[in-house]
Amino acid sequence: MQIKCGIIGASGYAGSELVRLLHAHPEATLVAINARSSIGKSIHELYPGFNECVNMVFEKEDQVIDKSDCIFISLPHGFSEPIVAKCLAKNKKVIDLGADFRLVDSQDYEDWYHMTYKDMTLHQQSVYGLSEIHREQIKEAHLIGNPGCYPTSIALGLYPLLKAQFSDAKHIIIDAKSGTTGAGKESSESSHFPRRNEAFAPYKIAKHRHTPEIEQMLSETLGKKCKITFVPHLLPINRGIISTIYVDLNKSITEEALYELYHSYYKDEKFVRLLPLGNVADVKFVQYSNYCDISLHLDERNNTLIIVSAIDNMIKGAAGQAIQNMNIMYKINEDSALTMIAPSF
Amino acid sequence: MQIKCGIIGASGYAGSELVRLLHAHPEATLVAINARSSIGKSIHELYPGFNECVNMVFEKEDQVIDKSDCIFISLPHGFSEPIVAKCLAKNKKVIDLGADFRLVDSQDYEDWYHMTYKDMTLHQQSVYGLSEIHREQIKEAHLIGNPGCYPTSIALGLYPLLKAQFSDAKHIIIDAKSGTTGAGKESSESSHFPRRNEAFAPYKIAKHRHTPEIEQMLSETLGKKCKITFVPHLLPINRGIISTIYVDLNKSITEEALYELYHSYYKDEKFVRLLPLGNVADVKFVQYSNYCDISLHLDERNNTLIIVSAIDNMIKGAAGQAIQNMNIMYKINEDSALTMIAPSF
Amino acid sequence: MQIKCGIIGASGYAGSELVRLLHAHPEATLVAINARSSIGKSIHELYPGFNECVNMVFEKEDQVIDKSDCIFISLPHGFSEPIVAKCLAKNKKVIDLGADFRLVDSQDYEDWYHMTYKDMTLHQQSVYGLSEIHREQIKEAHLIGNPGCYPTSIALGLYPLLKAQFSDAKHIIIDAKSGTTGAGKESSESSHFPRRNEAFAPYKIAKHRHTPEIEQMLSETLGKKCKITFVPHLLPINRGIISTIYVDLNKSITEEALYELYHSYYKDEKFVRLLPLGNVADVKFVQYSNYCDISLHLDERNNTLIIVSAIDNMIKGAAGQAIQNMNIMYKINEDSALTMIAPSF
Amino acid sequence: MQIKCGIIGASGYAGSELVRLLHAHPEATLVAINARSSIGKSIHELYPGFNECVNMVFEKEDQVIDKSDCIFISLPHGFSEPIVAKCLAKNKKVIDLGADFRLVDSQDYEDWYHMTYKDMTLHQQSVYGLSEIHREQIKEAHLIGNPGCYPTSIALGLYPLLKAQFSDAKHIIIDAKSGTTGAGKESSESSHFPRRNEAFAPYKIAKHRHTPEIEQMLSETLGKKCKITFVPHLLPINRGIISTIYVDLNKSITEEALYELYHSYYKDEKFVRLLPLGNVADVKFVQYSNYCDISLHLDERNNTLIIVSAIDNMIKGAAGQAIQNMNIMYKINEDSALTMIAPSF
Repeated sequence: MQIKCGIIGASGYAGSELVRLLHAHPEATLVAINARSSIGKSIHELYPGFNECVNMVFEKEDQVIDKSDCIFISLPHGFSEPIVAKCLAKNKKVIDLGADFRLVDSQDYEDWYHMTYKDMTLHQQSVYGLSEIHREQIKEAHLIGNPGCYPTSIALGLYPLLKAQFSDAKHIIIDAKSGTTGAGKESSESSHFPRRNEAFAPYKIAKHRHTPEIEQMLSETLGKKCKITFVPHLLPINRGIISTIYVDLNKSITEEALYELYHSYYKDEKFVRLLPLGNVADVKFVQYSNYCDISLHLDERNNTLIIVSAIDNMIKGAAGQAIQNMNIMYKINEDSALTMIAPSF
Repeated sequence: MQIKCGIIGASGYAGSELVRLLHAHPEATLVAINARSSIGKSIHELYPGFNECVNMVFEKEDQVIDKSDCIFISLPHGFSEPIVAKCLAKNKKVIDLGADFRLVDSQDYEDWYHMTYKDMTLHQQSVYGLSEIHREQIKEAHLIGNPGCYPTSIALGLYPLLKAQFSDAKHIIIDAKSGTTGAGKESSESSHFPRRNEAFAPYKIAKHRHTPEIEQMLSETLGKKCKITFVPHLLPINRGIISTIYVDLNKSITEEALYELYHSYYKDEKFVRLLPLGNVADVKFVQYSNYCDISLHLDERNNTLIIVSAIDNMIKGAAGQAIQNMNIMYKINEDSALTMIAPSF
Repeated sequence: MQIKCGIIGASGYAGSELVRLLHAHPEATLVAINARSSIGKSIHELYPGFNECVNMVFEKEDQVIDKSDCIFISLPHGFSEPIVAKCLAKNKKVIDLGADFRLVDSQDYEDWYHMTYKDMTLHQQSVYGLSEIHREQIKEAHLIGNPGCYPTSIALGLYPLLKAQFSDAKHIIIDAKSGTTGAGKESSESSHFPRRNEAFAPYKIAKHRHTPEIEQMLSETLGKKCKITFVPHLLPINRGIISTIYVDLNKSITEEALYELYHSYYKDEKFVRLLPLGNVADVKFVQYSNYCDISLHLDERNNTLIIVSAIDNMIKGAAGQAIQNMNIMYKINEDSALTMIAPSF
Repeated sequence: MQIKCGIIGASGYAGSELVRLLHAHPEATLVAINARSSIGKSIHELYPGFNECVNMVFEKEDQVIDKSDCIFISLPHGFSEPIVAKCLAKNKKVIDLGADFRLVDSQDYEDWYHMTYKDMTLHQQSVYGLSEIHREQIKEAHLIGNPGCYPTSIALGLYPLLKAQFSDAKHIIIDAKSGTTGAGKESSESSHFPRRNEAFAPYKIAKHRHTPEIEQMLSETLGKKCKITFVPHLLPINRGIISTIYVDLNKSITEEALYELYHSYYKDEKFVRLLPLGNVADVKFVQYSNYCDISLHLDERNNTLIIVSAIDNMIKGAAGQAIQNMNIMYKINEDSALTMIAPSF
């Protein structure tokens, strides 16, 4: 029996990827999609690549909820709470790709998003869905806060090191770079082709809203408060995130030993590929796939580990991980609909 | 029972796409791959995106032939004849992605490739594999000359018009533009990133080797000799071909009637999408898919039809159509392994 | 004594190039700039590259006119007439980069722009400023209609051939490709980076407003009515236009003779470079310069000449040619402020 | 009287920029160029943009030396010593753009370049030519080791902070990103367009040869040994470097005070633009210019200063600074030939 899936907010970039990936899901069927400002339109009017492939019309939110078992929400922050409440009341499962169900500490949400949680009982039911780390909780969850793109790449990159307490993590520097799909589907001065093409710069320096989410995840891993400096940059490419992570080690250790440590954590994880020493993760080799590629590089002169973690921001960083979480929740093959290999070009 | 597939010349770009697509084929298994200069190497050393996904080692040509039922050959022109001879002698099916089995007239091959056919009996067995047009012959074939990328986009774009004799086709102008993967995997001065990026120009003006192949296909369709001026250009993108085709009509006819004509030919063709009038084909909406998008535009001031035909040069223009042809030969679903939708970005 | 220049509409892309180029003009001084929606702002707020280099504030239109001897107008069509009237009344010289003073036949303007000329006496004073062709009239002009980007590349590409009557020009096919700066500074769905990047398609097929301007120029050259099919395409690069022009010859002639013909017309023209036979014009080699590169290619099989003409759309196609025209009007060195060589990358 | 300039190694990217910029120098004349493997060829055969603009033929090394007063050397490391010896013996001035005269400590050169200085007396005469910092020594120098691209952006970014001793600089993290022209003119697998386009990754992680040059400069500024972790990345753009620098402060200080500190150092420096607080440096706004844009961002949560420093790697990072140094050596206007403003697109 197929899982009946619905998407609320299917007109945005993450939504459109959900549509594309779920369309090829062997054990799930996309039964309804919603986009507030496009009710009645066909999705292929927005995304002509879907022409003759996905012939779905945007419906009202309630129709999507009623028709579906599992609802993906892909909306700007601040919109999910009432929808989640409705879904849970009707005993549906929910995976929220936005930011509203990721932060455990409501103060963090207030500080960084300048809004407040209205119904804490909802948030208490939410599981932060970093698939590889929270698999057991996800299995039992009815509500998933799907991780942000930057936090996914960073948390996977640091997990084994912090879990093993090989760093005091007093001050981790994270220099991250994202393709422009990360800024969403809406055109703006900043996304205007002649402005963005042949350009490169950081943005929201040490002020990006993913900061508390990253610190929450790293602190949970380390078992104590962890502080980071996080600086994202905008790449003139469509897809992909590289996080270059600088972390001081608290002991002398070889690159080989660090590799073994990471290998012990990830050797059975399909979607985390630890690259052989000497190789370097590149967005090129994860684009259009659900893989997270991690490479390790020890700066012996400073006893600093440099971790390079690459994902496709729209797949492992959004729609792909959301489907991976659904697969876990429904106890089907975790890689269903996610077996795509990155094209060579 | 799975079709056992092998690839000779799997290290190039078309070869690597064959590997990626066949890997996901539900009714075929890739059993062996060859690349002369990489025997013993793993393919993921060349294409790190295949890491942990495709763990195949390049073998010798004869091993690939022996292990396989259906052999794909993806080599520069001039190399296929002896391999094809061997394969057919062992009763294997062959799909040659190179240029050696496309031209019916050996003189054309001599004029444009400056080489000669050595064993004409082989060439006489070959079927030109434009899937939508030659489906019936492909079903019975043992040897397919898989069409070139430009000819595929152009022949599909002109087929209904010429078949219906709506043009005398005395002089068709074809202005085509291809992504740089069309130039292959080998780096060169011309493919050097700072040279190609932010650049655009035609090349091999009225001298490209696909010219006789295009004229052969158009003449066959029209039923008489057809002449073209063909000018390819190199786009600073990875994938995709747009052919903009200018053809004088021999009668007065509306855009709507032309649409109906095309629709009658292509309405049941999964991989040819005739766009509604007013829309324009764009490489963006066929990339990473096996679709050919066609849009029609009548210049009433000159009674000239402008046909825009877009494909992914590496899929419908190479590896995808080759697999489509295999599917036809083996009477399995024609779209097996080819159901990918173009990603929205 | 320096020419005092002013710009009305300096906030757009062509305006910003005028600012940049005039800033380095040895015989002219930019004294005032205007942009209706930015009065009081500094131009470096819009274009941070001008920071500490050009410290000018947008002023009101009348202030710009009063302070200047020579006024450049760079506005969308439909806005120039009243400004031109004011300028001429005050005995200023005007170079209009928009479309309002290019078309001689007011009916063409109505047909293609859906607006009407209000004051025909103004239009009768206007000279179409294709510098190389209309130099003598420009010298005496007070009002220049500065040519469009596509028409500049096309008219220069066809001039010698049509002037020599080597074609009947019954139906010239022009397949042109422009960088995205041609679409201007305003962001839109079509210019959104993830939409435009790795994309390519034609637009306004056989319906682009430059069509009558091109036909006007070609008909003037040929001495009789000339018809074209003109199809522009949008390139995923910032700058540059390539026009690939297909023209049937009315006599048998060698490529060498065609080269000599063109050479005789352009040998003393600094800004038109006729490439040696065998070379191909590329936007790469004219970007950031005022050059128009032309290469000739004879398709002997069809007795068709293929002309490739490349310019920087924002320089020779807009701001550069406007300054060239000013230099001609003021009888100073024609290349003043225009000696930039295209960077190699 | 014009300075007679010559270039040895003019066929590479830095060399070609020297040619382009010197061509427009009001007080210098490029009299001769050399490129070992192209003797007798015209430079416009390599760089078609120079066609009809720069008609120079590559000559032998000795001819270039004899004809010139000031010789620029732009060769891979290991080749400059004997040429410099010859030049100095003939009483010429030399600016070496390669790495051979940058490192004061010969051991650094051996450790990082695996070669040895052969004639230490030469190296003792060399001045490290970071124009803004070493202006007084440059005035008196006969031999300049022109700084590397990364070190230029980094040293300018950190100079005021370290000079003021506001950091102990125990461990500075530098995450830098460069356009692909930084890899030079030779094509390679890594620079192949389909490999590089839509890709992004670090390279030579904590092992790049600019590391000792950066540490030398920072240690000199700080007055004691300074250690860095330096990770360069390759951007899919042609030009530009962004260095994102993370430095822990040793005292509590406001962003405004930091701005004032930097302003006091750079307020009279034409080519260093300190951006107003709140702005972010972007390669877009320095490309094709000699400017270094610096923006400051205080991470108060960690008392870490994030410095963003942007240059054009081929101009301020190579040819432009070399000319700036020549201008200083000859006591002419420091900005001669360097007044270009970054184009807006």
